[in-house]
Amino acid sequence: MSTDSKNKIEEINKRFYEALNSFDIKIMEDVWLNDETVKCVHPGWPLIAGWDAVKESWENIFDSSGFNHVSISKLFIDHKEDSAWVNCVERISYKFDSQIIITLAQTTNIFELKNRDWQMVLHHASPMPVPLSESEIENLQ
Amino acid sequence: MSTDSKNKIEEINKRFYEALNSFDIKIMEDVWLNDETVKCVHPGWPLIAGWDAVKESWENIFDSSGFNHVSISKLFIDHKEDSAWVNCVERISYKFDSQIIITLAQTTNIFELKNRDWQMVLHHASPMPVPLSESEIENLQ
Repeated sequence: MSTDSKNKIEEINKRFYEALNSFDIKIMEDVWLNDETVKCVHPGWPLIAGWDAVKESWENIFDSSGFNHVSISKLFIDHKEDSAWVNCVERISYKFDSQIIITLAQTTNIFELKNRDWQMVLHHASPMPVPLSESEIENLQ
Repeated sequence: MSTDSKNKIEEINKRFYEALNSFDIKIMEDVWLNDETVKCVHPGWPLIAGWDAVKESWENIFDSSGFNHVSISKLFIDHKEDSAWVNCVERISYKFDSQIIITLAQTTNIFELKNRDWQMVLHHASPMPVPLSESEIENLQ
């Protein structure tokens, strides 16, 4: 894998999370391939297909889900000639009844190379258990 | 997308589910690329990286998870020059305390073309809500 390609893929993946954290549907539109082939699975949701439906789902998340912020870790980048996939763990915070709730999601993001630009074609995020300390477990009982 | 490539991708995806349903680690080994780059996310689990760890996870599922059978629906196939991804819904049954439990998972499977053969390099399955009929909901109350 060339360092140049890897950097570009890391950059477009980062830009996706910038779109999320700035609640900016214009950046989101720029990051994604805007056609009917794209797919999106939000944590615990069924698959959404096609840019129009995917865009609407992000607008709903920005408007009314309580979504607050996401940071990522444990990044893996794999790429072939004209496609690439990134795996990472998302730490997502939501505002709920004036409290901040933290959840973790394991994510696969797929990108395609189109006219020299990498564009997102699939986002699949799935809920994963949040590791708890012994004291946190005691507090639950 | 050529019909020939699409058929080959559908075939290798089918073979993955045949490996699962026959509890056959040899077929599983044949379907997957056996190297350190492969990734696997079982429903609700964190990511497992590298064939050795992925193979061990399938052996554990075959030996002791209560896994019984999986069937798939809602298939989408996308492919580029040397990579492809398949989305489908898995209907998974488990045996638990002499009962059969059904769960659904939304899945992304990624394949790479290696020496003219397609091989699995990523499996990401995430839990999704099971739709219930009105009478089933009443029975829960």
